[in-house]
Amino acid sequence: MNGKTQGGTMPEFQPVMDVAALEAFFAAHFPQIADDGRIYRFLSVQPGIVCLQFAPTEKNLRPGSTISGPTLFALADYAAYGAILAHIGPVALAVTTGASIDFLRKPSLGLLVAEAKLLKLGKRLAVIAIAISDELGALVAHSTMTYSIPPG
Amino acid sequence: MNGKTQGGTMPEFQPVMDVAALEAFFAAHFPQIADDGRIYRFLSVQPGIVCLQFAPTEKNLRPGSTISGPTLFALADYAAYGAILAHIGPVALAVTTGASIDFLRKPSLGLLVAEAKLLKLGKRLAVIAIAISDELGALVAHSTMTYSIPPG
Amino acid sequence: MNGKTQGGTMPEFQPVMDVAALEAFFAAHFPQIADDGRIYRFLSVQPGIVCLQFAPTEKNLRPGSTISGPTLFALADYAAYGAILAHIGPVALAVTTGASIDFLRKPSLGLLVAEAKLLKLGKRLAVIAIAISDELGALVAHSTMTYSIPPG
Amino acid sequence: MNGKTQGGTMPEFQPVMDVAALEAFFAAHFPQIADDGRIYRFLSVQPGIVCLQFAPTEKNLRPGSTISGPTLFALADYAAYGAILAHIGPVALAVTTGASIDFLRKPSLGLLVAEAKLLKLGKRLAVIAIAISDELGALVAHSTMTYSIPPG
Repeated sequence: MNGKTQGGTMPEFQPVMDVAALEAFFAAHFPQIADDGRIYRFLSVQPGIVCLQFAPTEKNLRPGSTISGPTLFALADYAAYGAILAHIGPVALAVTTGASIDFLRKPSLGLLVAEAKLLKLGKRLAVIAIAISDELGALVAHSTMTYSIPPG
Repeated sequence: MNGKTQGGTMPEFQPVMDVAALEAFFAAHFPQIADDGRIYRFLSVQPGIVCLQFAPTEKNLRPGSTISGPTLFALADYAAYGAILAHIGPVALAVTTGASIDFLRKPSLGLLVAEAKLLKLGKRLAVIAIAISDELGALVAHSTMTYSIPPG
Repeated sequence: MNGKTQGGTMPEFQPVMDVAALEAFFAAHFPQIADDGRIYRFLSVQPGIVCLQFAPTEKNLRPGSTISGPTLFALADYAAYGAILAHIGPVALAVTTGASIDFLRKPSLGLLVAEAKLLKLGKRLAVIAIAISDELGALVAHSTMTYSIPPG
Repeated sequence: MNGKTQGGTMPEFQPVMDVAALEAFFAAHFPQIADDGRIYRFLSVQPGIVCLQFAPTEKNLRPGSTISGPTLFALADYAAYGAILAHIGPVALAVTTGASIDFLRKPSLGLLVAEAKLLKLGKRLAVIAIAISDELGALVAHSTMTYSIPPG
């Protein structure tokens, strides 16, 4: 499911930012996503893959203790954006052009983790698959997002 | 683009809730979406179509005064949910099972309006197309959402 | 649902190919889609909108006389491609980068019509919404497709 | 990216049909997809995962030796359908309700393989992620498909 499979010839994705650099960039440029406290936390950066943890608050819950769809979409979006930045650096202004998401299961209460994998990192477009799992390891949502990468 | 075209045989969609009823339902069941003030406002309910207005706040802006993708997704989701409830009534617990969204243009500053049209309202699944426009009438985003409707 | 709404400031889409020009282009460049006879036929070209008619054959039917999903996807893709070419001319080599499609109803037997509307026609990306209806006017499928437009 | 991760509590997917049974079912019920010769071939059935190989013919090529988008969509759809049938048996009449697909790279000439993974197999809905790779191991397309599973 990633851009390179065993025996393939795709050049490996090579990160240029680590967890600390990602955290610093988001804190500086997206302070509003931390308005409710430090609910997002980058866990790891590997070639082609970035993991982002999310601690839901009361505000993100729907009746029945369900995490809202827009909350899961935002989590997927931040993880995807982190995966791109980690590989092209903090300068570029990538913007989402399209996304699809499937909501699979009601998550257990507790932390969620979004794993964002680069499917493609071209000069103009990047495509990322994001799998969101809960603390029990169940897959909660799956999304694919496309970002446009500006020239230069 | 709606479920019935001229000369068609689809039964017309018939709303069972009006703007006031929708507003009351959301105020009672989704108080958290009004945490930052009354930024959502249902404008109209017609057969198969519901319009929802959104007044962005500082919190929804990205660098460069862009409305964030998750904010537009949330707007589309609320409008779609409103369109379903307006036609099946406030009791049912419909949940989003999947969605796709295309971000088309950077909106002008100011109010946005999401127009949600029922493409299908079946016993088990509803599909809604949502067009989000800015105050200048430019199409900002287009989304399609699928909701699962519980039995009974 | 199109790129311009009343009172808006979007420049109108202006076609540069008519039905005859589209038909000639597809016959020359996509002869294989006519292998089973003349089953596709462009009906009209208007600013921002192109209509393509499809006459299903036995080969496109699934058990229960259902039109197959891939057949409807292909119809949406050809209509979208026709809509782009009609507005940028026959030279450019646009390629699909992504698509989503919702299958709404089992169509009645008979002709289908795909109406492709430009939602965006930028320098790099075009986004098209396609509504497929059957002869009774019922909406059978709805799709959104993104095309990458090559530089120059 | 599958329905169960290490340490998770999701029940494992358990296939009830093997490669031979899938091949026999498709030959009996979808003879038209073999009209141009035996271009599809199931390679393997594992818990939650089915692999389908595709040998493109001249008919599937676009100018520039590109595999057409609808051809890749059809390949993804057959693989997804095979994955569902392999796990619920040949009787059920599952139908696609929605799909999204991203086209990532122009494939090398030669065989393609679609790997279909169950993300969810519920009573009413199944969601499948499909990754299509070429002979060099490069990821060519990625799709997510939702099927409605009939009651009983």
